[in-house]
Amino acid sequence: MSERQIHNLAIIGVGLIGGSLAIALRNAGITNNIIGCGRSEANLKKAVELGVIDGYTHDVARAVQAADMVFVAVPLGAMKSVFQQMKDTLPVNAIVTDGGSAKACVLDDWLSVYGNDRQFVAGHPIAGTENSGVEAALPDLYRNRRVILTPTGTTDLENLNKVISMWEACGAEVSQMSVEHHDQVLAATSHLPHVLAFGLVETLDRLEAHTEIFKYAAGGFRDFSRIASSNPVMWRDICLANADALKPILDQFIVELQQLSTVVEKRDGERLLEVFNNAKQARDDYVDGLE
Amino acid sequence: MSERQIHNLAIIGVGLIGGSLAIALRNAGITNNIIGCGRSEANLKKAVELGVIDGYTHDVARAVQAADMVFVAVPLGAMKSVFQQMKDTLPVNAIVTDGGSAKACVLDDWLSVYGNDRQFVAGHPIAGTENSGVEAALPDLYRNRRVILTPTGTTDLENLNKVISMWEACGAEVSQMSVEHHDQVLAATSHLPHVLAFGLVETLDRLEAHTEIFKYAAGGFRDFSRIASSNPVMWRDICLANADALKPILDQFIVELQQLSTVVEKRDGERLLEVFNNAKQARDDYVDGLE
Repeated sequence: MSERQIHNLAIIGVGLIGGSLAIALRNAGITNNIIGCGRSEANLKKAVELGVIDGYTHDVARAVQAADMVFVAVPLGAMKSVFQQMKDTLPVNAIVTDGGSAKACVLDDWLSVYGNDRQFVAGHPIAGTENSGVEAALPDLYRNRRVILTPTGTTDLENLNKVISMWEACGAEVSQMSVEHHDQVLAATSHLPHVLAFGLVETLDRLEAHTEIFKYAAGGFRDFSRIASSNPVMWRDICLANADALKPILDQFIVELQQLSTVVEKRDGERLLEVFNNAKQARDDYVDGLE
Repeated sequence: MSERQIHNLAIIGVGLIGGSLAIALRNAGITNNIIGCGRSEANLKKAVELGVIDGYTHDVARAVQAADMVFVAVPLGAMKSVFQQMKDTLPVNAIVTDGGSAKACVLDDWLSVYGNDRQFVAGHPIAGTENSGVEAALPDLYRNRRVILTPTGTTDLENLNKVISMWEACGAEVSQMSVEHHDQVLAATSHLPHVLAFGLVETLDRLEAHTEIFKYAAGGFRDFSRIASSNPVMWRDICLANADALKPILDQFIVELQQLSTVVEKRDGERLLEVFNNAKQARDDYVDGLE
């Protein structure tokens, strides 16, 4: 059996993220034994029906007891409890990794339960849709998408390589950065836009003319606000977990908007054009860079 | 000949907006004589090649001299000059309408040249893409999209009905509101999101790690920032022209963000969830309402 093989995979949280990993690894022939764990009986039954998992339990301790790889894809606020529940049954050679959108908090949760990260590799697949649940899972969710792993100075290199192989088997492009850097980059590119989208819809909804405003909202607003349809509980957890990195970039953006407000008030067309030109250039370069 | 017919249509500014109107009216059999007017020879030649217009001139005065309907689709900053250039040759029974994204400024420009709005009906098709130029024009750009007309107390009702018929022939859904209300609604749903998208990309671009930040930007950011690829000159003009309505809603949003920043700092999960739940609900209702 190749080193890439996973004998028994446990997926804690069989939704879009966990379910898509299970399907991709099964399709890649990396594993044939996948046990799912979660709270919703209906969702887990659906996951078995869809062939995403082979069986399930509601008990985290039982889910991991025969696993050599455990993937935890639960909301950030539930990570610590899941880590605690698996402590007594986790095989000594099993690797635990996760898909949480912020990493300092997850690592802290792990260390507070286990004391060291010998069995843990923190990770974050940069993929997703605004849908959730196993029915939203996609075999190709991770193909050509980036996965960031955030090893520490004490991460076990064999474990790290095994997690890299797992994601590469899904077609993902794996990179590594420090926990702190990950949390800053994601605060800027993902967490801040979500806060803005939620905040904008909230602001418009409080206006007297909100029904009419939404009625006349054009395509730009539709795209712009799509991410405000994301799961509110998940995003509350992310904002709380990554508050230290999110707050400074949010405040920086507020200063940018205050300056733009003054520019608009003064009708300073030259400065407006400068900002808009620069932003368009950066955005177009970034999109060109992706394609 | 039916009352809906337009004998001679003049399109001043043959880009996405003007070009799409020309194609739609020709396809609907409403007009067979379309003259285009603009500055770029290459764009106008392309428009003739594509069958969008039948002929062209760079001279606004000549473009309108035989027209019974004139559609002005130039940047807001160029409206007044176009109105001045057509003053001496505009037939006494011709109707002039426009596609500008803000309406108080266009009406002011018209009145400053003509003294009354006997021949003018201000309008705004809520449609567009981030592309521009006649090659971006689409036959169905206005199908099932909203067009807002902003008649005043002195608008000629026959002219108004003729402009309504013109847009309905393109498959658009026409509604009417006051100039002031239009400018407030559009400031909230279109102009503010554009300022936010430009401002966000600008903020991220100024960070030290900006190359890496754009590299790891996920799908949410991509959609969110798409409108930052829009034409910077056009959006400068819109922000200047609608500054009176844009500034208050921008300031209101800044206050919302300041509150969210405090909520994040205090780790007030309850309040965050309240805001996110409400925004998701409003956004989902609005999307459901559209579909």
